[in-house]
Amino acid sequence: MKKYVFGADLGGTTVKLGFFRTDGALLNQWEIPTVKEEGGRQIIPDIGKSLLAFMQRENIPMEEVEGIGLDVPGAVSREGLVLTGVNIGWEGEKDAASELSAITDLPVVCANDANAAALGEQWMGSGKNTENLIMVTLGTGVGAGVIIGGRILAGAHGSAGEVGHTALFPELQEKCGCGNTGCFEQLCSARGMMRTAAKYAPSGSIDGVPLEKLNPKEIFTAAGKGNTLCAEIVAEYAANLGRGLAVFASILDPEVILIGGGISHAGEALLIPVREAYRKHVFYPAADTPIIRASLGNNAGIYGCARLVLTQR
Amino acid sequence: MKKYVFGADLGGTTVKLGFFRTDGALLNQWEIPTVKEEGGRQIIPDIGKSLLAFMQRENIPMEEVEGIGLDVPGAVSREGLVLTGVNIGWEGEKDAASELSAITDLPVVCANDANAAALGEQWMGSGKNTENLIMVTLGTGVGAGVIIGGRILAGAHGSAGEVGHTALFPELQEKCGCGNTGCFEQLCSARGMMRTAAKYAPSGSIDGVPLEKLNPKEIFTAAGKGNTLCAEIVAEYAANLGRGLAVFASILDPEVILIGGGISHAGEALLIPVREAYRKHVFYPAADTPIIRASLGNNAGIYGCARLVLTQR
Repeated sequence: MKKYVFGADLGGTTVKLGFFRTDGALLNQWEIPTVKEEGGRQIIPDIGKSLLAFMQRENIPMEEVEGIGLDVPGAVSREGLVLTGVNIGWEGEKDAASELSAITDLPVVCANDANAAALGEQWMGSGKNTENLIMVTLGTGVGAGVIIGGRILAGAHGSAGEVGHTALFPELQEKCGCGNTGCFEQLCSARGMMRTAAKYAPSGSIDGVPLEKLNPKEIFTAAGKGNTLCAEIVAEYAANLGRGLAVFASILDPEVILIGGGISHAGEALLIPVREAYRKHVFYPAADTPIIRASLGNNAGIYGCARLVLTQR
Repeated sequence: MKKYVFGADLGGTTVKLGFFRTDGALLNQWEIPTVKEEGGRQIIPDIGKSLLAFMQRENIPMEEVEGIGLDVPGAVSREGLVLTGVNIGWEGEKDAASELSAITDLPVVCANDANAAALGEQWMGSGKNTENLIMVTLGTGVGAGVIIGGRILAGAHGSAGEVGHTALFPELQEKCGCGNTGCFEQLCSARGMMRTAAKYAPSGSIDGVPLEKLNPKEIFTAAGKGNTLCAEIVAEYAANLGRGLAVFASILDPEVILIGGGISHAGEALLIPVREAYRKHVFYPAADTPIIRASLGNNAGIYGCARLVLTQR
């Protein structure tokens, strides 16, 4: 095995770049802006230039680098083709890996960003020492990645692990952004928590504060301070989340379930009721599967990208 | 690779045994009774004796046999340990593979029966030429197996692919046999179809025939002949099944979904409305995933067992 590997986590605003030893030590990291203009055509050349400049400046010989792992906010086929890159201006299918490889003369492997984050956590985060896990990221939406046998489960159409769009809540009437109704994301994202809040506060405000000025963090804080309404909102949110995780675990039976994203900062105030709901609904052999917080935060992506190169060799 | 391999599909009434060429040709098959008395202690010795007698009779040299694949109606750990074998009299954990290997002097690999059936279909049945599939068997209960990269997904506790016990129907009040409520199996097994029938026929009979004298096959037949009530029952059954498959596919994104078991004999009368419900609920990249009938019938288990030995070499 060579000595070094790069990870490039391509997001809607910035590209996070990481320089790793192949044993998992993060040696250096930096960011460049994601230039979405002109169909995002500069994004890959910008990444290539930045990595080449870094290698030159730091005197990294090309032959000591295994390659570059690249993740994107969109679906990626099993062959590594980017199928959808709407958030970064790309239209149609794009072979981003080949493009970056042509610029850098290094092998490049490409994956979906939520999948890469899950792989990063499995390599060097809360999933260390496991081979099979689910990581669910609770943000504006719900992202997720599934790792089986130490590798990303991509799926036939690059959409495996899309737990955010599993139809778990038939009682919902409103449409999800994906076009369906009843999606896990509709109740378990940050927006989903505010949807539950609106149900509990039909007046449109809690203790005089309008709902549109509140966010999940404030609801957790108020619940912790004894606000009954907020405690009910947290309880229902956790019950829905726990039930969803139970469905995923009944199908995948992972060694551990990791929770990341903004809402995960609520910590045990969230995880204790989530575990309770999970146990109530999961198929019993998986009742004791640990549900814990992811630990790499915003760096999970670059770790996962680096690991991607090593698992694909 | 050696020339031959055995498959032993251990069921509650009989053990099905198959003798295969390693290229997948089934050369011979027979059955022996499953003797469940005395904690099922004779089952493994009986299998061993039957296989040894066959090899002697047919002059099969030991060194031309890759090994024996064995499946059981219960959970099996990733290491091949039988965790639960209640239906066949076994109590506690049992290392059935080592026991059979000691008797036959051949390598033995052990798996859950629903998982083995899925692997059999992937090798030589409707899943041929794919590497990733879900197979759902609709019988008295609902069994299922998940194949990823041409291998069984067993899970951390041997319960991966237990789609029958995913909590998809929160509206149900009655408990499932597993102890939870709202399980997929509660509405999508043969018994589940009769539960739906009871909802549509509160009088307890359809056209004067008491529900307890009817079965899913007769309901499909009556629906095909224009019985409106039975058509409604089929429609609701198919809608629930399609929604469940959509959840599984949103998570696993397989190349194909196979339907086996008694109810699958209804064929396109079942599959057409199932596909419609599936498309309505699945995450869109997986909308066109084929949903087709499994093709190996009761032989799927022996095929899968034989394949198990070859994928584990």
